[in-house]
Amino acid sequence: MITNLHRIRRDIEELSKFNATPGQGLTRFSLTNEDREAREYIKSELTKLGLKVYEDPAGSIFGKRDGINNDLPVIMIGSHFDSVKNGGNFDGPAGIVMALEIMRVLEENNVKTKYPIEFVGMIEEEGGRFGGGVFGSRAMTGKVSTDQLYNNKDEAGIYMAEALRKFGFNPDEIEKAKRAPKDIKAFIELHIEQGPILETENKDIGIVDFIVGINEFKVIVRGRPDHAGTTPMDMRSDALSTASKVISKIDGYAKDASEGTVATVGILNVKPGAANIVPGEVTFTVDIRSKKGDCIRSVKNRIIKCLNEEAHSSGVEIKIIEMLDVNPVKMSDQITESLENNGKSCGFSYIKMLSGAGHDAMVMASITDVGLLFVPSKNGRSHCPEEWTDYEDLQKGIEVIYNTILDLGEEI
Amino acid sequence: MITNLHRIRRDIEELSKFNATPGQGLTRFSLTNEDREAREYIKSELTKLGLKVYEDPAGSIFGKRDGINNDLPVIMIGSHFDSVKNGGNFDGPAGIVMALEIMRVLEENNVKTKYPIEFVGMIEEEGGRFGGGVFGSRAMTGKVSTDQLYNNKDEAGIYMAEALRKFGFNPDEIEKAKRAPKDIKAFIELHIEQGPILETENKDIGIVDFIVGINEFKVIVRGRPDHAGTTPMDMRSDALSTASKVISKIDGYAKDASEGTVATVGILNVKPGAANIVPGEVTFTVDIRSKKGDCIRSVKNRIIKCLNEEAHSSGVEIKIIEMLDVNPVKMSDQITESLENNGKSCGFSYIKMLSGAGHDAMVMASITDVGLLFVPSKNGRSHCPEEWTDYEDLQKGIEVIYNTILDLGEEI
Repeated sequence: MITNLHRIRRDIEELSKFNATPGQGLTRFSLTNEDREAREYIKSELTKLGLKVYEDPAGSIFGKRDGINNDLPVIMIGSHFDSVKNGGNFDGPAGIVMALEIMRVLEENNVKTKYPIEFVGMIEEEGGRFGGGVFGSRAMTGKVSTDQLYNNKDEAGIYMAEALRKFGFNPDEIEKAKRAPKDIKAFIELHIEQGPILETENKDIGIVDFIVGINEFKVIVRGRPDHAGTTPMDMRSDALSTASKVISKIDGYAKDASEGTVATVGILNVKPGAANIVPGEVTFTVDIRSKKGDCIRSVKNRIIKCLNEEAHSSGVEIKIIEMLDVNPVKMSDQITESLENNGKSCGFSYIKMLSGAGHDAMVMASITDVGLLFVPSKNGRSHCPEEWTDYEDLQKGIEVIYNTILDLGEEI
Repeated sequence: MITNLHRIRRDIEELSKFNATPGQGLTRFSLTNEDREAREYIKSELTKLGLKVYEDPAGSIFGKRDGINNDLPVIMIGSHFDSVKNGGNFDGPAGIVMALEIMRVLEENNVKTKYPIEFVGMIEEEGGRFGGGVFGSRAMTGKVSTDQLYNNKDEAGIYMAEALRKFGFNPDEIEKAKRAPKDIKAFIELHIEQGPILETENKDIGIVDFIVGINEFKVIVRGRPDHAGTTPMDMRSDALSTASKVISKIDGYAKDASEGTVATVGILNVKPGAANIVPGEVTFTVDIRSKKGDCIRSVKNRIIKCLNEEAHSSGVEIKIIEMLDVNPVKMSDQITESLENNGKSCGFSYIKMLSGAGHDAMVMASITDVGLLFVPSKNGRSHCPEEWTDYEDLQKGIEVIYNTILDLGEEI
């Protein structure tokens, strides 16, 4: 292989050091000290290669390599370098390392391409700090407004606008992060599978042809915080009891929708949160995914109907806040075909598959042709300290994308 | 009236200043700065009266007033001065102020009693910081072990033993807080009702003849934290989905048990707590109260049965940790009768009633005769910033207990 296993491993290991929770998985929230350290590492690696390095107002890092004709649109490669809380070393960084390594191989082999090639490293893809997620790609596709930056805050009450400004990015100029469709020929991402399929089927790589749609919303249930001993059951407005009656039905709604539809309540907070006080307020998130938009809407409608019924009988109030709404997305046939052909000619085994997780590629598809390649996840695990991909498997994915870049970029 | 409305009001207002959440109700957790400030105020008021002031290893404050015969057991009066999170100014302090004011009236009128009278101010009655609750009285009745102090910790991970030691109390000597039944003739507490009955029935005071039993336990549900997008519904062990199926049934179990039985899930925490991760672990509390022990056991058994069934079908593990188990308690007939007679002779309206909330009086009943008097709660509210009792109503309760102390203490 033309790519270098040693460098791939070193990149992953170096990036893994920038971690707020050593010993308890990787936690690298956006616009924190750990972000800054990872950012410096990435920028320094790009600078060493002589690329044009810059950052946009959304905090994404770019490194552009000239083509023969720089008036032509770029081929963009990369992923994100933020993580969930107590996650692993590969979700995000695998795609960052793919793009770094491809840039190195292009340089050291003095490869000339007709189209320019551009590295991208994005943040807040997970939405771990400010919610919502896929932030870098939403900014690039013009889906982030300055208002949102002044409204979205983290758990400590710090607004995203403030956090960006502290890093030297101007939240008032977020629209300058927007890229024109005519300036990007393709976007290709590598990501860990985060599921058990490649391992179970014993395949080297997965070539994604479809990314599920995602709807994420927040539900606020407001009841009344009464004393748990002196308030008879029939005089309560218990926010948690009401919420639980809805949450307990959500897995059934997802199963009924079929088509691989999934729905998850991942965050739930109770106020005031004491053993002897009836919960006065509960906030929880709902994340619904499916390859069919109709399935997402059907699950959501049933949840809202159930919420309204339960609210009516328990006297609580319900508020729903939309966080994220992305339609199912089809990958580019041309890129998918090139990935397949290169997978074959490298002698790797592969399958075409769905992506159940949202990725920046999903958002980028609104402005350009997109390709997405998966590498296997050990035991299907991700978003946890046990998340693992063998370096040899990661290299195979990088090798395939390298060859696809030569195809699409039209190596001279 | 012989008691002083101005002083009663001043005591409540002064104690309300020692508050970690001004503007958002009163939060005075045990062994914090706010505890220390309230403690200094109470000790200083007791010292001014020339009482023998001391603290036991559980952090309870005592002030002993001599009787004619100090070999006789004491008549103890008081309550607790900790609060729930974002609670009110009266839950606990009303009884502290009762005991302070009675001591003042005894002193300024130079009253001589045959039996010594002892003030007590206890902490962690609410269990707001370390869980469990009624800590001061449990320590006095020998129900706290040194081991528990080294095992119970607050949300910040500080063990109760450590917090006590920081205040100069020795957790290794907790058993020295234990009082012998022969040394206490009676314990009388005043408390706000925390419910709507006195106000609804337009009564000045409530004379409690029965306190409900309480069982509090913690449930830990351990599933597997998978990716919310890539893990099919039928391959999940979702701790929150499972917990919600049980929690949603608890209000029905309590209603079925009747006899005024109540059950509450007041705390629920989700780990890792991200919108796109299937919950791997959920911890929640259950608080069950009834005047019949059988009703408590029946609700608990149904909860545990349901937990086991749900755990079986979703592949989660369940762990149950007992926090508090107190039987229903009957008050002393002699004291109840004295409170009634004094209520009548003062010309106040009263009713005899159940207490749905646990109080230190409930625990003290295991070693001595106990009396408990309620004063009205505005709109039945408590454990919230709106908690309120008119000072005139509080004074009526104090006046009745003062006269009862003269009866029981055998004024010379």
